[in-house]
Amino acid sequence: MEDALTTYLEEARPRQLAELQAWLRIPSISTLAGHKADVKQAATWLMAQMRQAGLEHVELIETETQPMVYADWLHAGPDQPTVLIYGHFDVQPVDPLHLWATPPFEPTVRGENLYARGASDDKGQTFLHVKAVEALLQTRGGLPVNVKFLVEGEEESGSRAIRQYVPAHAAKLAADAALISDSHILAPDQPAVLYGLRGMWTAEVTVTTADHDLHSGSYGGAIHNANQALAELLAQLHDAQGRITVPGFYDEVRVLSAEERGRLARLPYGEAEILAESGAPAVYGEPEYSVVERTGARPTLEINGMWGGFIGEGFKTVIPCQAHAKISCRLVPYQDPARIGELVTRHLQRLAPPTVKVEVTGTRGSHAFLTPYDTPAIQAAARAYALVFGKEPVYTLEGGGIPVVNVLQEALNLPVVLMGFGLPDDNLHAPNEKFYLPNFYRGIRTSIAFLEEMAGTDT
Amino acid sequence: MEDALTTYLEEARPRQLAELQAWLRIPSISTLAGHKADVKQAATWLMAQMRQAGLEHVELIETETQPMVYADWLHAGPDQPTVLIYGHFDVQPVDPLHLWATPPFEPTVRGENLYARGASDDKGQTFLHVKAVEALLQTRGGLPVNVKFLVEGEEESGSRAIRQYVPAHAAKLAADAALISDSHILAPDQPAVLYGLRGMWTAEVTVTTADHDLHSGSYGGAIHNANQALAELLAQLHDAQGRITVPGFYDEVRVLSAEERGRLARLPYGEAEILAESGAPAVYGEPEYSVVERTGARPTLEINGMWGGFIGEGFKTVIPCQAHAKISCRLVPYQDPARIGELVTRHLQRLAPPTVKVEVTGTRGSHAFLTPYDTPAIQAAARAYALVFGKEPVYTLEGGGIPVVNVLQEALNLPVVLMGFGLPDDNLHAPNEKFYLPNFYRGIRTSIAFLEEMAGTDT
Repeated sequence: MEDALTTYLEEARPRQLAELQAWLRIPSISTLAGHKADVKQAATWLMAQMRQAGLEHVELIETETQPMVYADWLHAGPDQPTVLIYGHFDVQPVDPLHLWATPPFEPTVRGENLYARGASDDKGQTFLHVKAVEALLQTRGGLPVNVKFLVEGEEESGSRAIRQYVPAHAAKLAADAALISDSHILAPDQPAVLYGLRGMWTAEVTVTTADHDLHSGSYGGAIHNANQALAELLAQLHDAQGRITVPGFYDEVRVLSAEERGRLARLPYGEAEILAESGAPAVYGEPEYSVVERTGARPTLEINGMWGGFIGEGFKTVIPCQAHAKISCRLVPYQDPARIGELVTRHLQRLAPPTVKVEVTGTRGSHAFLTPYDTPAIQAAARAYALVFGKEPVYTLEGGGIPVVNVLQEALNLPVVLMGFGLPDDNLHAPNEKFYLPNFYRGIRTSIAFLEEMAGTDT
Repeated sequence: MEDALTTYLEEARPRQLAELQAWLRIPSISTLAGHKADVKQAATWLMAQMRQAGLEHVELIETETQPMVYADWLHAGPDQPTVLIYGHFDVQPVDPLHLWATPPFEPTVRGENLYARGASDDKGQTFLHVKAVEALLQTRGGLPVNVKFLVEGEEESGSRAIRQYVPAHAAKLAADAALISDSHILAPDQPAVLYGLRGMWTAEVTVTTADHDLHSGSYGGAIHNANQALAELLAQLHDAQGRITVPGFYDEVRVLSAEERGRLARLPYGEAEILAESGAPAVYGEPEYSVVERTGARPTLEINGMWGGFIGEGFKTVIPCQAHAKISCRLVPYQDPARIGELVTRHLQRLAPPTVKVEVTGTRGSHAFLTPYDTPAIQAAARAYALVFGKEPVYTLEGGGIPVVNVLQEALNLPVVLMGFGLPDDNLHAPNEKFYLPNFYRGIRTSIAFLEEMAGTDT
């Protein structure tokens, strides 16, 4: 990297951090209707930053759900490839709020970390690409490749609008590779290229055992308690080894080759690491698979939320007539979310005794994703990582789905590069989300290096 | 009943109803700290009514938790027995609020029912005794027996103060029988004397599987989900027939004699009635016992509340690190609540796999209660019911414990008469609690008849 750019990047750090903090102050929670204006504000804030960076055609794309932002810089010439950079400016809800050391929307630096909702997922990781482009345009007046940005505002609530927008605007978004930073590497100094992501199926389960809540003194012992009925149903979805018991659930699951299992086994991540990160007393799950395989290559069924009866202060001797669970399945190639939904729903209905009515509602799904890791764009990312981090990246499978990945891959027919800068202990979707700041700055340099590595690449 | 009293009672009805409505407007929820002033106001409101009725020594008894009210009228002479009337002016919480047809603290008459929190449990049933005494004192200037009132403000939250007060003031409260109306009869025209009540053990169960909430994408499949772990534990507390699986749980349970089972079998209440009342699709529980036996003579274990993970609007793909349940056991003679608590706690601990930490906290308990149904005071109640309702009462066992019953029986060494005027579908502890008004007025007359039947009784 030439001196002018290096100096620029050194001097720009305080401003880059302050700008990111300003963006993080906007509580753009897309899943809560009351935050709709905040999501929009996060979009318009980003647009101002893009204009400042020197990007062109900066555009607010209004949709029926949440807005998106588009921008580009297309002056590298027709011989150079085009990179489409994706990110999202919406964030997860923040409760339980009392577990945050500092408020989620008051970004706070402690040690080498920046704490805030969205710090890592995904404002911080989106913003570093804007800063990379800005640095190049301000020091060199140009980029080595053509760049397009598409940044959405509902990744945490289903990515509905972008699923329609991308196929309908394929020419406008045409590119040779997509670049997404919405994942994590293995350790502060160990970069990782993700080549596979799990998909998702989500739904709400409601169990009904009476038409109104009942006094446990008068009915206890003779009417099925809905909490108990729900617990009894949910408890039958896994066996004692953590295998999912839904008939047919594993039928389509991609089988790992011995070569791939061997490569995954060499990752510096195992039971000791996951126990240290989670604070769990013991590891859970399918004993015939490693921890890396369980979280990346195997499907799951989780109870993300569960509630019924009296859950306030004090005590109420009630037999609840209804109980609820929010459940989700992480899916792997080649499971079909719609088919999984049918299997889980049918299984729950079949398990229900005559005392219990079961409803499964609000289902949504996305397919898993896999890119061959020898794709040229992925190799460019690997070289960029190695250059900036001074260490070759490893190739990993991840559990967290990014709905748009399949949309980009299928509608635009391009390879998707997942180049993360977060860390495993970033507390995504949990209290005290953070971004490790040294890797925010490294991320800016890696983004620059990636664009340079892409120049002249035959994709 | 002489004409003057009959006429008085006919004419007093609108005023009696309006007064009860005024009392029901006070939201005296004892289990919620924010309603402490309301509980006190319900007490002082009752005191004014007692003075108006002609009762003497009306006294507010302040305690460390919620206040009690005492009053008496002791001019029937030393040869006449003394009746101690117990009631409570605190009420249950009201959520889920949206299920109430009219607000819980805006008492509303619809058809023959008065809808409000506390209408039946227990303001309405307490108030009718005050109105009975008032009617006698205002029409005759005296009562046939000596009467003491002790009305508490924390029946719905543990009856702590009264447990200490009664033994410490045994001489002041000395009586020949205690009268409690905090239960229900079988049908509007079918009175019932309760001769047994189940006791209670309550606790909160907390399951921990990690030290913070985790992203299901990164950890799903390798760390035990606390909701799932809780469901798996709770599901193991009953077998498929509804029997409780805690080892030793049934060891001390009172065995029903063939004679008693035969008498209970003649009650006009069974599966059809409980299904109609509850709206349940099927009856639950131990197949070798009738519905009456299951709800009155058999112990239970209920999950009154259960919660964990993300339970708000939208979706959050989180693995919760903790999940919670409020559980309670209805106990029968001769189960010991402390012993039951040990058994349940030990069983949960033993069931927990290495991935799960279980804590059982906040346990409380009360013993079950049983009075021989040929006790003279109970027979006086039976005659009073028959006189006013025109039908002989049946003798029932009930599930709902009234903590003070054991305190009165043990500390004052007197028979306790449980003479209810509620109905099975009164929605106690649930939305749309009501009191069937014809039985509010009949209750006043039955209370008068009971005091008359008690006169000269050799207790």
